[in-house]
Amino acid sequence: MKDSIPNFFNPKTVAIFGSMKEGKTGYEIVRNMLEGGFKGGIYPISQTNGKILGLKTFSDFKNLSIDLAIIAIPGSFIPVLLEDLGKQNVSSVVIISAGFSEVGNLKEEEELLTIARKYQIRIIGPNCAGIMNTSNNLFASIEVRALPGNTAFITQSGALGGAVLMMAEELGFGFSKFVSYGNRCDVDEADLIDYLRDDSETRVIAIYIEALAEGKKFLSKIKTTVSKKPIIAIKAGKFKAGKRATSSHTGSLAGEDRIYEAAFRQFGILRVEDIEEMFDLCRGLEYYPRINGKRIAIITNAGGPAVMTTDKLEELGLEVPEPSGSLIKTLKGLLPPNVSLKNPFDLLAYGSADTFTQVGETIAPEYDALIIIFVPTASMDSVKIAQAVGEIKKKINKPIFTSFMAGRLVKKGIEELKKYGIPNYSTGERCARVIQKIVWHTLKNNPK
Amino acid sequence: MKDSIPNFFNPKTVAIFGSMKEGKTGYEIVRNMLEGGFKGGIYPISQTNGKILGLKTFSDFKNLSIDLAIIAIPGSFIPVLLEDLGKQNVSSVVIISAGFSEVGNLKEEEELLTIARKYQIRIIGPNCAGIMNTSNNLFASIEVRALPGNTAFITQSGALGGAVLMMAEELGFGFSKFVSYGNRCDVDEADLIDYLRDDSETRVIAIYIEALAEGKKFLSKIKTTVSKKPIIAIKAGKFKAGKRATSSHTGSLAGEDRIYEAAFRQFGILRVEDIEEMFDLCRGLEYYPRINGKRIAIITNAGGPAVMTTDKLEELGLEVPEPSGSLIKTLKGLLPPNVSLKNPFDLLAYGSADTFTQVGETIAPEYDALIIIFVPTASMDSVKIAQAVGEIKKKINKPIFTSFMAGRLVKKGIEELKKYGIPNYSTGERCARVIQKIVWHTLKNNPK
Repeated sequence: MKDSIPNFFNPKTVAIFGSMKEGKTGYEIVRNMLEGGFKGGIYPISQTNGKILGLKTFSDFKNLSIDLAIIAIPGSFIPVLLEDLGKQNVSSVVIISAGFSEVGNLKEEEELLTIARKYQIRIIGPNCAGIMNTSNNLFASIEVRALPGNTAFITQSGALGGAVLMMAEELGFGFSKFVSYGNRCDVDEADLIDYLRDDSETRVIAIYIEALAEGKKFLSKIKTTVSKKPIIAIKAGKFKAGKRATSSHTGSLAGEDRIYEAAFRQFGILRVEDIEEMFDLCRGLEYYPRINGKRIAIITNAGGPAVMTTDKLEELGLEVPEPSGSLIKTLKGLLPPNVSLKNPFDLLAYGSADTFTQVGETIAPEYDALIIIFVPTASMDSVKIAQAVGEIKKKINKPIFTSFMAGRLVKKGIEELKKYGIPNYSTGERCARVIQKIVWHTLKNNPK
Repeated sequence: MKDSIPNFFNPKTVAIFGSMKEGKTGYEIVRNMLEGGFKGGIYPISQTNGKILGLKTFSDFKNLSIDLAIIAIPGSFIPVLLEDLGKQNVSSVVIISAGFSEVGNLKEEEELLTIARKYQIRIIGPNCAGIMNTSNNLFASIEVRALPGNTAFITQSGALGGAVLMMAEELGFGFSKFVSYGNRCDVDEADLIDYLRDDSETRVIAIYIEALAEGKKFLSKIKTTVSKKPIIAIKAGKFKAGKRATSSHTGSLAGEDRIYEAAFRQFGILRVEDIEEMFDLCRGLEYYPRINGKRIAIITNAGGPAVMTTDKLEELGLEVPEPSGSLIKTLKGLLPPNVSLKNPFDLLAYGSADTFTQVGETIAPEYDALIIIFVPTASMDSVKIAQAVGEIKKKINKPIFTSFMAGRLVKKGIEELKKYGIPNYSTGERCARVIQKIVWHTLKNNPK
């Protein structure tokens, strides 16, 4: 099953089953699909013919050609509907409706799967928040519409998915695909990763899991994926009460955390602690899929933040090595006398755009990545420094991370950095954490 | 010396020595003082009489009564100026100018101190970013003006101070006092803490240090302060290269980190990892100076985020205990059948304002603090939930922390929470980290 779930993300026609009253799930999905600009057929299925949001509704769907069905009707009606869809050869079904294994209704969920198998239907859900594909404006979900991007996010928890989408919107961070897969009675994280491995719009895969459906299947899919694109995982349910919480809300027991941790390490999955670290790492990996070694240089006009970043880099097992004798010699010729010729390279008040560029270009050959920490005074122009950093990036073939600190004085500078494809973080410590993970990923999954 | 540095923060008159050309330090400080609305006398000292920014400048300051002198002239001219100020009985001097011990000019710095001792002048600096007191609009600094608040922030690194002020502005977080003390040739962190202990506008003291001037003096001041108000410290220069970085930029060697760590623990100082954690903790402590125990309850409508928060709480040594049998009984009578009667209390789709209030008020007696994690769907009103949480707070005498997730859908809700004095964090994990530190602080410094 190389490509087991194709029609979920590229349907020509989507039928939505659910209440078409304003504010109800069915209606809100139709609205999201319309407002999102889906170009294919959108078929709201309603008991009475009529119109919603300018769209024709259908009470009879027997003559419709349906590539993807989104179901948000009460659970007890779903088996009959599934049978009907199966007879029409609909093969991709997303069940939003809740009330299955997550509240103890195991038999009811089993029944869905039995019908699906009979008709070769693939199901995402039940008890999920839907799916999105930003490249064709498919927003089959009631959640905030994702911006386009290159990270696919798949999540067991629908609520967490909603929170991630809203945070992403605020950050201006986009996704290629979004999948909330809920109780995963059929399609699971392994199937989704298998699909995303060959999805050309996805460069990074991020996943939230509480417990895996089938550990072996998951790991076998991981094996063939991590060398092609990085996989980031948030694994929740580590501790006693955490596990209890997991088991109460998805109806499954979390496995032993140490086993997961070991498997993740062995198979090259990047584990992160929380959503904020996930975003930080996704942004880093989208720009820089690899960092070839541990030697990091810091260039700054701000001593304190550079010290803290140096601490963090060393704590994480990275190196902040001194420049070589010949490099020191070259720098001496370039720089004002008081500038520090050590790593971190503290330019002090001499931290003009030109000095940043000169130092950056000069030291780059001796390091694997650069962190540039810039704290402007009220009279400094952060855009100029951003452009200088951008010029360094064009000339050297090494990853550059920045921390322009902070607030309104650097807002425009950070926007400028984006144009050059340079990820900015609120602190140098955050840069350090991202770099450590990318270095690990590179050495583990794609050594030279 | 109970109150050794009174005139720094409550001067009636301030003289500024420095270039009065637009964009230069002297001019920018005068502008900050004026725009900030300082009500006392502002005396720009300039070689030629005239006006800047509508203010009279003075070439001769011999007849002026000066409570506080701010110096930003080239270092070589400062000794003569200090002598003149000493003869006029000026006792409080802030030296912004750099070029002293931080670049190896130890003798020049020693000379400043010798003159200061001779005339009983107290010096903050040199090589610092100035001081602020928001209660009387004293902004003797070129940095962004702090908003008023109840945290005093003192920092060895001026650049870090600038970054902190800009981040704070963006967060809407205010300070009572801000002090960048630079090379601390005279006034050090111990003197400042001694002063801030009895400052009625300061409820929390936060400090950034790379190395202490005098460990014993510092710890003796801490001892008498921590039971009155919490002290939060960022201690940088932990590791080898971090230390090298420290020594290069302040001219002092960082002490062994483990000794600091042990002393901080023993003396009840709250150590944080970075600026972001510092802000999180300051906000928590301003609202809740104490949390009496480790039993934490989570109420949520979002399973995934609650699981992650539970994990973090347990990882940090806190407890997420089940409700008692009698509490379960009471809850059963109140709630719809599918709602989880475990901790975390997952209200699922039943998470209406009323349900949050009912559950919060009912369970509060069995727990030491509550975390409320709320993830709205697009149609939910976060303000209503915020008001419900506010009502819980009015009725129970326990700290409540919230994580309303995320972005524009909860923006108004978070503003509403502020009105009730409830601190909101971007994730439940952040709530957990803050709670853990406040619990530790309470048990260590102010047990019942």
